[in-house]
Amino acid sequence: MTASNITAPTQFLQVKNEKYAYRRFGKGSGLPLLLLQHFTGTLDNWDPAVTDPLASGREVILFESAGLGRSSGKVPETVAGMAMHALGFLDGLGIATCDVLGFSLGGMVAQQMAQERPSVFRRMILVGTAPRGGEDIMHLEKPSLAKYLNDPQLRGYAVLQKIFFAPTASSQAAGEAFIGRLAQRKEDREPASGREVAGAQMAAFHDWEQFTGERFAYLKSIRQPILVVNGIHDEMISVSNSYWLSQNLPNAVLLTYPDSGHGSLFQFHESFTRQAAAFLASDSQFAPY
Amino acid sequence: MTASNITAPTQFLQVKNEKYAYRRFGKGSGLPLLLLQHFTGTLDNWDPAVTDPLASGREVILFESAGLGRSSGKVPETVAGMAMHALGFLDGLGIATCDVLGFSLGGMVAQQMAQERPSVFRRMILVGTAPRGGEDIMHLEKPSLAKYLNDPQLRGYAVLQKIFFAPTASSQAAGEAFIGRLAQRKEDREPASGREVAGAQMAAFHDWEQFTGERFAYLKSIRQPILVVNGIHDEMISVSNSYWLSQNLPNAVLLTYPDSGHGSLFQFHESFTRQAAAFLASDSQFAPY
Repeated sequence: MTASNITAPTQFLQVKNEKYAYRRFGKGSGLPLLLLQHFTGTLDNWDPAVTDPLASGREVILFESAGLGRSSGKVPETVAGMAMHALGFLDGLGIATCDVLGFSLGGMVAQQMAQERPSVFRRMILVGTAPRGGEDIMHLEKPSLAKYLNDPQLRGYAVLQKIFFAPTASSQAAGEAFIGRLAQRKEDREPASGREVAGAQMAAFHDWEQFTGERFAYLKSIRQPILVVNGIHDEMISVSNSYWLSQNLPNAVLLTYPDSGHGSLFQFHESFTRQAAAFLASDSQFAPY
Repeated sequence: MTASNITAPTQFLQVKNEKYAYRRFGKGSGLPLLLLQHFTGTLDNWDPAVTDPLASGREVILFESAGLGRSSGKVPETVAGMAMHALGFLDGLGIATCDVLGFSLGGMVAQQMAQERPSVFRRMILVGTAPRGGEDIMHLEKPSLAKYLNDPQLRGYAVLQKIFFAPTASSQAAGEAFIGRLAQRKEDREPASGREVAGAQMAAFHDWEQFTGERFAYLKSIRQPILVVNGIHDEMISVSNSYWLSQNLPNAVLLTYPDSGHGSLFQFHESFTRQAAAFLASDSQFAPY
């Protein structure tokens, strides 16, 4: 059986009072790669066109944080609370150091983890995310997003196609292919997230826009080699946030994709997985690869 | 003899009333790659660590525009004037379509050429450059640049090391290695540029900051796959210009490098040539590679 998020069984790990759902598949000489998920996303929202090529060089570990899918507990209302779950999960697996791919909310959790415990990540990939103190983070009330979110004709994955992809024929076609791939997994699926998940995660986004002291100063202490990736027309978390990340992180390469929105990594999955694999394969202390 | 800018003979091409100096070396299955040079740079300012790896997959053609080095004529005071020389040069060589790497001023000339004659370029690499109507383009009076340019202790390549690289130990060390590589060519060198060259090219930069009509609208018509590259701490042409390029060009990938200034392609020459070669090797209609 090929290592794939279409078929990988969901596993469960008990750590203290929580039971976390996760999937772990693939092999290779690379460090394990932890994948941290976006707003309301479950294990089933990881595109096999992204996870599976990465799993050909290393184990990928998809983590379901507390209160999502079949994981127990409540969704924290802060990124720091989510980071505590992810660190506890890695401890439970006995993983001291790994690589990480954090997408959107997951990229914020990854930054928080690196700040709290620098040794936890060797290399980091931050896609469609923002620094603490960033702007235009998940303002779902913006007309460009609200028109889809409030459209009663759109449900489930059809909404994702609209809000994760740019309003061009080429990007929407890529979005249609994306949701087709998500639907390929037929069994052992996670329950979709409800209002309670969304509410708590939105609170965490709002909190993440606040900052005290010098703006972005905390990024100076995250010294890992980092690859920052963003779609150039991202309406959910605008690309300016990735500019701030790469201007303030001491060791980050920025890669932006044209004709794309929040889901740029899914739209250009061949390029993204090639770039990500080349970045992860590097042993250099410098991010450029 | 290895194809290298350390040893490639300078050649001359007569086109109408001008005689252009150039170097042409390398081979491979790729289209020829035209290299368009920065402010006051001659053929000798092309880093062999950048030209030579690229020459292993294709011919590279280093072009000396009018009034530079041993090319005849006067330096035009507009980018459009420079583009006319470069187009005439390609016509003289009988090259209808090629790829292009335009660095700084050269990236502006490349945009102008693509706008005037879309068929001239298949794929474009624009490094450390700006769109027409950009800002913070070669403001040499800024304290961060003037302190080096007006320092009587600094001459020649020592100035380049300061202004092309970031003020960190790691970037300055890369700058020292860069000027060491430029000095490797011992014979058949070009005369350095004087005040007349600098004055005319500065006039072209000032003109390039002006625009009429909708800002950046002309970029929509440059539909080639484009790779935009910038050092994240570029004092000569700030990275915001590369953000505008990638936000307004319909088909451009942006790559920024950390801990680097205007000369990011020289500082990270291994990464840059690997990325550039991968980009040029693609036959896709889309820029992502």
